Amino acid sequence: VSPLDSDRALPADPTTRAIAREIYGTTAGFPIVSMHGHVDAGLFVRDEPFPDPAELFIRPDHYLTRMLGSQRIGRAELGLPEDPAVPLPDPRRTWRLFCENWRLYRATPTRYWLEHILGDVFGTDTRPSAETADTLYDELASALARPEFRPTALLERFRIETLATTDGAADDLTGHAQLATADLSALVIPTFRPDALFAVSGAAWRAELDRLQAAVGREIGDLAGFLDALGERRLFFSAAGARATDHASVTADIAPLDGPTAAAVFARALAGEATAADEAAFVAHMLFEMARMSDIPVATEYTRGLRPVLEAFGHHPGLTFVVFTLDETSFSRELAPLAGVFPAMRLGAPWWFLDTPGGMRRFREAITDNAGFYNTSGFVDDTRAFCSIPARHDLSRRVDAGYLAQLVAEGRLPLDEAVETAADLAYNLPRETYPALTADAR
Amino acid sequence: VSPLDSDRALPADPTTRAIAREIYGTTAGFPIVSMHGHVDAGLFVRDEPFPDPAELFIRPDHYLTRMLGSQRIGRAELGLPEDPAVPLPDPRRTWRLFCENWRLYRATPTRYWLEHILGDVFGTDTRPSAETADTLYDELASALARPEFRPTALLERFRIETLATTDGAADDLTGHAQLATADLSALVIPTFRPDALFAVSGAAWRAELDRLQAAVGREIGDLAGFLDALGERRLFFSAAGARATDHASVTADIAPLDGPTAAAVFARALAGEATAADEAAFVAHMLFEMARMSDIPVATEYTRGLRPVLEAFGHHPGLTFVVFTLDETSFSRELAPLAGVFPAMRLGAPWWFLDTPGGMRRFREAITDNAGFYNTSGFVDDTRAFCSIPARHDLSRRVDAGYLAQLVAEGRLPLDEAVETAADLAYNLPRETYPALTADAR
Amino acid sequence: VSPLDSDRALPADPTTRAIAREIYGTTAGFPIVSMHGHVDAGLFVRDEPFPDPAELFIRPDHYLTRMLGSQRIGRAELGLPEDPAVPLPDPRRTWRLFCENWRLYRATPTRYWLEHILGDVFGTDTRPSAETADTLYDELASALARPEFRPTALLERFRIETLATTDGAADDLTGHAQLATADLSALVIPTFRPDALFAVSGAAWRAELDRLQAAVGREIGDLAGFLDALGERRLFFSAAGARATDHASVTADIAPLDGPTAAAVFARALAGEATAADEAAFVAHMLFEMARMSDIPVATEYTRGLRPVLEAFGHHPGLTFVVFTLDETSFSRELAPLAGVFPAMRLGAPWWFLDTPGGMRRFREAITDNAGFYNTSGFVDDTRAFCSIPARHDLSRRVDAGYLAQLVAEGRLPLDEAVETAADLAYNLPRETYPALTADAR
Repeated sequence: VSPLDSDRALPADPTTRAIAREIYGTTAGFPIVSMHGHVDAGLFVRDEPFPDPAELFIRPDHYLTRMLGSQRIGRAELGLPEDPAVPLPDPRRTWRLFCENWRLYRATPTRYWLEHILGDVFGTDTRPSAETADTLYDELASALARPEFRPTALLERFRIETLATTDGAADDLTGHAQLATADLSALVIPTFRPDALFAVSGAAWRAELDRLQAAVGREIGDLAGFLDALGERRLFFSAAGARATDHASVTADIAPLDGPTAAAVFARALAGEATAADEAAFVAHMLFEMARMSDIPVATEYTRGLRPVLEAFGHHPGLTFVVFTLDETSFSRELAPLAGVFPAMRLGAPWWFLDTPGGMRRFREAITDNAGFYNTSGFVDDTRAFCSIPARHDLSRRVDAGYLAQLVAEGRLPLDEAVETAADLAYNLPRETYPALTADAR
Repeated sequence: VSPLDSDRALPADPTTRAIAREIYGTTAGFPIVSMHGHVDAGLFVRDEPFPDPAELFIRPDHYLTRMLGSQRIGRAELGLPEDPAVPLPDPRRTWRLFCENWRLYRATPTRYWLEHILGDVFGTDTRPSAETADTLYDELASALARPEFRPTALLERFRIETLATTDGAADDLTGHAQLATADLSALVIPTFRPDALFAVSGAAWRAELDRLQAAVGREIGDLAGFLDALGERRLFFSAAGARATDHASVTADIAPLDGPTAAAVFARALAGEATAADEAAFVAHMLFEMARMSDIPVATEYTRGLRPVLEAFGHHPGLTFVVFTLDETSFSRELAPLAGVFPAMRLGAPWWFLDTPGGMRRFREAITDNAGFYNTSGFVDDTRAFCSIPARHDLSRRVDAGYLAQLVAEGRLPLDEAVETAADLAYNLPRETYPALTADAR
Repeated sequence: VSPLDSDRALPADPTTRAIAREIYGTTAGFPIVSMHGHVDAGLFVRDEPFPDPAELFIRPDHYLTRMLGSQRIGRAELGLPEDPAVPLPDPRRTWRLFCENWRLYRATPTRYWLEHILGDVFGTDTRPSAETADTLYDELASALARPEFRPTALLERFRIETLATTDGAADDLTGHAQLATADLSALVIPTFRPDALFAVSGAAWRAELDRLQAAVGREIGDLAGFLDALGERRLFFSAAGARATDHASVTADIAPLDGPTAAAVFARALAGEATAADEAAFVAHMLFEMARMSDIPVATEYTRGLRPVLEAFGHHPGLTFVVFTLDETSFSRELAPLAGVFPAMRLGAPWWFLDTPGGMRRFREAITDNAGFYNTSGFVDDTRAFCSIPARHDLSRRVDAGYLAQLVAEGRLPLDEAVETAADLAYNLPRETYPALTADAR
């Protein structure tokens, strides 16, 4: 039994809380559909016990170590080697320093995820502190050594139904192939992320191109060959179950180049002469090319310059753009109105810095007036921290239940419709947004 | 008796709700003062029965059809002819498709307005759905055929005291003239909107100028003649009861041109040679000219570049700028501080995308600290959907009651002052902002 | 006994209010640590009775007079002479006009501070109005004449432990020297504000430079001499107890100039030939120089261009930047993430237009997810209105108690941690942010 407060993150007002509790009760037990994230497929192929608590929870969590750093407790003091291959010299000391500074995390999502993990996954209500650090370390380390804490066992226990990884365009997806034939409780699928191949002015581009050439088994001599190779890789990913491509962009204007200009940029790239301006133009161009190739969802992460893409592809019947942003001010002013117009666009869940109780709530408040619920993607965790996946989905269900409960309490939505909406947000919309997940399309 | 929840849109917390209910109870019955909107005066001149429910509620409502479109139910599928003169081929089918997709509107203002209309105007609590679509259609169609649902009857039933329309500068206002002598329960007044005459680089400008020439009965050969004609039309509108001019602008800098430059731009316009840059400069110039002509309110709809106008006219004793924006982030940072300085400026009500329960609440939260209540315009519905006018004013009164109730509950405002403020927001401020509405100035 | 509602500004929901009341109860009695403000040290040196209520509360308060002005009650009508040396011709009339317009201040911080002062400092619950204006004037005037309302008596009664003033670089700090030997209940310390010396293109710069030359007793012939003089003045301020320098900036890019360029700009300034562009570059350069000189906190007031400074000095062990902003949209998007990374940066309290119940609450909601509580400065009042200092600190403690209470009510923070956090925000963090305030460093 979890020692966590069963009402956590539900609204404080007793009237609203009672309604929220009722709504949340209908979604709490749903399986998890994780359509975009960064867990490595190899984790389940290897299925080894997780290392100690410091290696598992502290070392890979930038949010956690960043907060310590902001208070002048740097990586060196924490005992974190720069080289990821080098094990922690003194994991217990690292853990202790973290526990001693637990107060820094008050009201942050880092604390929320960890409390959920400690309580729900490990069943402990010990509060991290200088006094409890060692006992807690022992408690967690001993649990992690048990078979029921191996990755595939947790995958089942977490009731994860689908888990999407994120993979480079040249990746051979052997991990996914092995998992496809394994007796796994979840469907683990790749996501196609070719961004590194668009960075034509960077030092690493040539190596990326070489990997792509190796993957398709031929030399790439011009832009047409490049597009062919990308198209081939997309089919390979699609056959392995991929149902989305993923792109990040911070450029302001997304616009296609004419054919000769695009070919010339690519030729300069091959000659090692592409400039930063070439790269910006090429990235913008390739986002168009990827949309043109798509009959599957494209997860984009930009807010400006969206309109040209939407005007070209926003009514395309087989395409879904899921748009994520870090700029909350764009929600009510730009994104919700766009999502409320273009059928190919859905608003992605609050993300990165906004993946918090407050951020999730502000998202609904900012966008629902104009976009409603059914132009949103449903929850996307976007995390590499496997153990935090249930915490994130659970929080999302709680915050949505609280928002819906307020609508009910204010006489703006009947309870039965709120319950149906909660189920759609938690389960149906993520499946529908990434459509091949429906049984017939697998 | 309306089947609607009498507490809808009031705060959920029982303490605050009880106070909000008391405040709202004092304003709920006030007449409606609708100082800016887009209802056509001809509606009341003709006073014909409204057509069927699909023609009345679906066809003209861009918000409603846009949401269906965002879910791939386009105008063709809805059976909406592009030509507004062509009647709906199958209104019952159109209505049915809408009812089947009622869930899309959860938590949106479209739903809020329609629920209010169904419940308060038609007295039905039937929830739109595939199952109820036909019954509901029949119920509404049969009501619409009755005399008490004709436009003038509803105008009286809605307790509308004043209704401002929006009219082009060359409009002959015959509708208003007829209404002035009719036995109407409300005062229906025009608003002067000359924007089309400032678009000097557009293809339609020449025709607009021709209409203006016809209206004043003489040729316009230069800028001075143009300004004379506009001044004459303003007097004509003023005599017909107009108490505001209305301008939209998205340009960044509002600044007057010097005389020769302005005259040269106008000469190029007459020669059919004005450029887009000419137009932008001319629009900016004309906003100054209109302010100079004014002794009546100017409703502006821009946020940037406001300062030059305010520095020139912000202390003018006979002028009121009512400023509307779609950019919520400008409320606390820019607009509230400006409104808190310049006597000629009032903050318009939350508008367009922001005309929602959440938008109205956020407006008060963002601006009241700095602008208080008395630098705001009171509620402005800005709608062309006649039947939704009571819903919009009622919601505004509820949201303001909720905001005021929180101030009371937090010990920041005594109840008697909250009640007085609610009355000012609902009734006195709109009348005062458009001052000729006071008895002596009519 | 104060007639004010003891629960004012605490959350309305009874569950949350009970928790908030408990948390606030633990911080309400703490001494006030006012680490940044604009009260004049001479006020306590002279220790004269405050003048009449109009001279004390109306004349110097721009917020108060601005609101009257926005409603066409200008300074002339209020009877406020432009020359600050000229006494009010009819203070009672000025006071009466203000009281008659008390409704304008509903829900504004001006009202909140004044209600607190009337209730808590003067013990009256008379509500300002046309009817009560004269009685209230007499009541306040008679209190102000009593010894217990003199500045030093109030300083003690307000439980102010530390009060920082803001002073020009050439100031001789004689007031501070006198106070240092006086039997004062509070530590009154200066803050070094050299901004006027960076405005090299302005007409007043030469006089500022002359003052600096007089203060150091030598001529300043080049940039090196200028930096020497500033450094000397900083040591002088530091010896007088200063623990911060204060800079305002609205420029976009803060970046150091190379040595010859900086020297050339300064030479142009000495020749009276510096341009506005020179000044912008010089201000940016000097912010770097000031950071380089610092082993003490620098209070900055800009949001853009922060990154270059942080990259250069953000990990400096002996430096603290406290960053204030007026742009609320930058909190969640920019400032909280930066404060969550750079140890030298702390987020200043909500400030100026944002120093309100709503602004304080939105600040916590926007920044805590990412920055936590311990990367904030604690409360800073930044006021020149001495009598409002307790009101501001008290409101801050109430709003923070309300925010923390919500975390407790939502099961996100145990009560004991909330109480500890409240104490840190109210008392420990301001002392820690300006570190020399700890006993050993005095």
